[in-house]
Amino acid sequence: MRADDALPVELPGTVREAVLTPLIDHHCHGVRRDDLTRARFEMLITEAGAPAPPGTTHFDTPAGAAVRRWCAPVLGLEPHVPPAVYLARRAELGAAEANRRLLRAAGVAAFLVDTGRDGPGLLPAVDMGRLGGATAEEVVRIEQVEQEVAVSATSGVSYLALLGEALAARAVRAVGLTSVIAYRHGLDFDPARPSRGAVIAAAGRRRIISEARLTDPVLLRHLLWTAVDVARERNLPLRFHTGHGDPGLDLRRADPALMTGFIRALQPVGVPVVLLHCYPFHRQAAYLAAAFPHVYVGVGHMPAYTAAGSASVVGELLELVPFHKQLFGSGSHGVAETCYLGALYYRRGLARALAVRLAADEWSVQDAARVAHMIGSGNARRVYRL
Amino acid sequence: MRADDALPVELPGTVREAVLTPLIDHHCHGVRRDDLTRARFEMLITEAGAPAPPGTTHFDTPAGAAVRRWCAPVLGLEPHVPPAVYLARRAELGAAEANRRLLRAAGVAAFLVDTGRDGPGLLPAVDMGRLGGATAEEVVRIEQVEQEVAVSATSGVSYLALLGEALAARAVRAVGLTSVIAYRHGLDFDPARPSRGAVIAAAGRRRIISEARLTDPVLLRHLLWTAVDVARERNLPLRFHTGHGDPGLDLRRADPALMTGFIRALQPVGVPVVLLHCYPFHRQAAYLAAAFPHVYVGVGHMPAYTAAGSASVVGELLELVPFHKQLFGSGSHGVAETCYLGALYYRRGLARALAVRLAADEWSVQDAARVAHMIGSGNARRVYRL
Amino acid sequence: MRADDALPVELPGTVREAVLTPLIDHHCHGVRRDDLTRARFEMLITEAGAPAPPGTTHFDTPAGAAVRRWCAPVLGLEPHVPPAVYLARRAELGAAEANRRLLRAAGVAAFLVDTGRDGPGLLPAVDMGRLGGATAEEVVRIEQVEQEVAVSATSGVSYLALLGEALAARAVRAVGLTSVIAYRHGLDFDPARPSRGAVIAAAGRRRIISEARLTDPVLLRHLLWTAVDVARERNLPLRFHTGHGDPGLDLRRADPALMTGFIRALQPVGVPVVLLHCYPFHRQAAYLAAAFPHVYVGVGHMPAYTAAGSASVVGELLELVPFHKQLFGSGSHGVAETCYLGALYYRRGLARALAVRLAADEWSVQDAARVAHMIGSGNARRVYRL
Repeated sequence: MRADDALPVELPGTVREAVLTPLIDHHCHGVRRDDLTRARFEMLITEAGAPAPPGTTHFDTPAGAAVRRWCAPVLGLEPHVPPAVYLARRAELGAAEANRRLLRAAGVAAFLVDTGRDGPGLLPAVDMGRLGGATAEEVVRIEQVEQEVAVSATSGVSYLALLGEALAARAVRAVGLTSVIAYRHGLDFDPARPSRGAVIAAAGRRRIISEARLTDPVLLRHLLWTAVDVARERNLPLRFHTGHGDPGLDLRRADPALMTGFIRALQPVGVPVVLLHCYPFHRQAAYLAAAFPHVYVGVGHMPAYTAAGSASVVGELLELVPFHKQLFGSGSHGVAETCYLGALYYRRGLARALAVRLAADEWSVQDAARVAHMIGSGNARRVYRL
Repeated sequence: MRADDALPVELPGTVREAVLTPLIDHHCHGVRRDDLTRARFEMLITEAGAPAPPGTTHFDTPAGAAVRRWCAPVLGLEPHVPPAVYLARRAELGAAEANRRLLRAAGVAAFLVDTGRDGPGLLPAVDMGRLGGATAEEVVRIEQVEQEVAVSATSGVSYLALLGEALAARAVRAVGLTSVIAYRHGLDFDPARPSRGAVIAAAGRRRIISEARLTDPVLLRHLLWTAVDVARERNLPLRFHTGHGDPGLDLRRADPALMTGFIRALQPVGVPVVLLHCYPFHRQAAYLAAAFPHVYVGVGHMPAYTAAGSASVVGELLELVPFHKQLFGSGSHGVAETCYLGALYYRRGLARALAVRLAADEWSVQDAARVAHMIGSGNARRVYRL
Repeated sequence: MRADDALPVELPGTVREAVLTPLIDHHCHGVRRDDLTRARFEMLITEAGAPAPPGTTHFDTPAGAAVRRWCAPVLGLEPHVPPAVYLARRAELGAAEANRRLLRAAGVAAFLVDTGRDGPGLLPAVDMGRLGGATAEEVVRIEQVEQEVAVSATSGVSYLALLGEALAARAVRAVGLTSVIAYRHGLDFDPARPSRGAVIAAAGRRRIISEARLTDPVLLRHLLWTAVDVARERNLPLRFHTGHGDPGLDLRRADPALMTGFIRALQPVGVPVVLLHCYPFHRQAAYLAAAFPHVYVGVGHMPAYTAAGSASVVGELLELVPFHKQLFGSGSHGVAETCYLGALYYRRGLARALAVRLAADEWSVQDAARVAHMIGSGNARRVYRL
């Protein structure tokens, strides 16, 4: 056990061990493999999508303070060093060594990597696993697959055929599928499967200009339902980014409760639906996970972003979610710091919630340990069939 | 004072007594009178509307853990016994004795029973009172009355006449009226009273197929305004289920803030409006109770559902609601466990909130005790004219 | 240091000093200069817009309890005195002395006064400063300027010219502009600047009946965009009331996330946007402040209204807002009690949040003190160019 894994509360030994057991990080992205300038690093510890205003810095955020506090010791520095010192040390170690230290310190047994943002600058899943001392599996982002298909398709009809084939082919090696329809359209989409005619017509209109993102609602819904078919065929869960998580989103349209009709339509199909991030709609997500047998939930990157204030976010999700419905995931992307902080604050938040329940004579020690195992790895093993 | 009434915090004697004083449960439903299979019992400790996924159990929820922790001792078991042991003991005692023990342990002086879900399997109000050592009064669910009228009416005109008569007749013995328009339509209904012509036309189209639920927006609004007339005539409050509370609801349309126009229309009429459940919109409900003199609020079944995490829900409601506007109600239904847990977690959450305020030197001991009496029973006596 | 400034927690000396340093109250209104009846006073410690129901009192609210607890000693009384004793003492001192004591006790170095509600009964900015031992600056409410222009304009064309001139003239002496479009229309307004033709046509239809409020969406948007021009010209921030804050509002339409399109349109313009009040959408506001470099946020009057429960509101805002993006403001209006309580509960809430972070070994003492200075006054100095 590392000193910087220190939990903020006293816990019985079995509960402490359960919280510190290696996690399955069911939701992460590749981190950058190259050395980063300060400007670039700052952009990767925030969802802002723009530099901080003149005279300010993204280090002056909950996540920035957490990097200085918790990541600095992993790189061999004192806690709370100034940003410049932190980044100088990071450069001195080099990106590979910094990534290795931070990913290992996260204490993860398996990374399930959403490869939808991949590019030459990002570590692929296999390297995430290698550096982190863990296994690694792939989760396919369906909108990325569509983009490749849209470039190749020569007609609406060929688009349809190619899309089904491409998703099925990519799914062979994957443990899950992910959609970012929340960012491309909003979760207030029509839950019905669109007609073949409507899809062919819309596909004929789909214009591909280099990396043009899909925003057509008919094609987005067709993509989603094609993914449902593939997920059902291969027993894969289908995941959705919801809530906080993209500078281009309209927060109001990222409320997972907007998906209620779609979720209801999927109930007889038997495909698990996993809601990611969710904040500030995590209680809505908790309701959906409690109300529907096929809905699962995790707070993703929010513990890392809310950092010193994350205990309340973690606690609010625990209020209503069945213990077999919540999954740990760091939601990390860009820099390995977000992975380490995601795991750290998940563990700190859960430890606090368990300590409160034990102190209030609510749960038994055995139950507390069992819930920690379920959320930390057991549920992911079951849902992703690992 | 029972051992299982133990409050989680130290409180001055008068405050402790105030919190433990018998409550008026202004919002509950009949519980099942028969012995229950495990499958049936699990369905009654959740709002899921479906069994837990294969390999999991609804006992692995905050409410399920609370049943094992708090209800087990009421049935003479150790805390935290496994579900099978709990249910075996419950069967051994028989439903009547289990109900009697749990309803008594709730420490309730009067049950105001929403009889809208009544059927031969549920205890009627009088038996809830008898078993619970309390008085019992009836709250009429207006959609249930409408369903009976719809079966009898032979024309749109007769529907109108019969509905008014039936509501007035049922209201004679009732202390309040309740609407579930949130579940049948959503709270985003047109606040205006529909015209007589529109109602007769819609009533002519109303098709009754055995227990067909009313979903026509014109008839739902007519029903609501007829209820307003009856409530005004008899000085009864009109209550609304809002937020979490039905597997068939669309959560976004159950936000009580959607009713603002209707609430404003009712302000000059003088009929108290009581918002039930509310989660995760309890802060919106708190705002409405603070902004409008005729709006009241309670968190209903949410303390029982959020259980070990309920202190924050209870606390968030207390943030803004005037002390004379909040009412305790267990929101219980189905099994007596939900009534006992509703009372227990309400008391524990309030006790914690009061202890925090006393420790922070915010409230006087006298005020803390007074607020506990108001929310626990005083406000209900005033609003329901008990 | 005053006894009633007592913070609820132990803090290192430098952090304690930082929290107690005189604040810049970036958002307040004039308070009444005259002696007040009990009925009038009660209406000014609530947003209810109506008297409390018969047999109840607005003193039985979190804010009312806080007046008795914290303001009573400032007037020389024991904590928790009954309302009648408090009001008798207030009358004995006279409004001027009561205002002087309460404004001074707030520990404010500069008041930025929204003069939009001004009338003969309210203290103007200069007197707020004089009584409070502070400097005072003006923030112009744009809807009030429009109302004056609408009375003078003789045609749609003259309306346009006069409005631009009047806003520019008023801005000369101001440090910021404020809009209450949330209360006049809702924040779901069309973000596009309306055409000149549409504005002239709508202005021709604008009917002025004594103090008729502007509700026409085209004119409201025109007013807003005219304010944007003036703000850009003079480097002023543009502020928006959002969330809880007016008995006439529709809460659902006061969610600041509804303004996302407008905020995005303003990003290249370079005008800072400040979100006020926000509750219960303060997490949505926090997201906007984190996502957009020109968005700032404060909880305004909510600490005073939620009083003993305010720590969680203050804490939830701190979860995600960058430290350079939050501004203290009491949001006070009507009575000086709201100013004192706003400052008191902001300090208590922040002190608790800092204490929690220090105890959890999250932040350094230096960082905690620095953040307190930034939120308390530093950010306001920068954004308002004081």
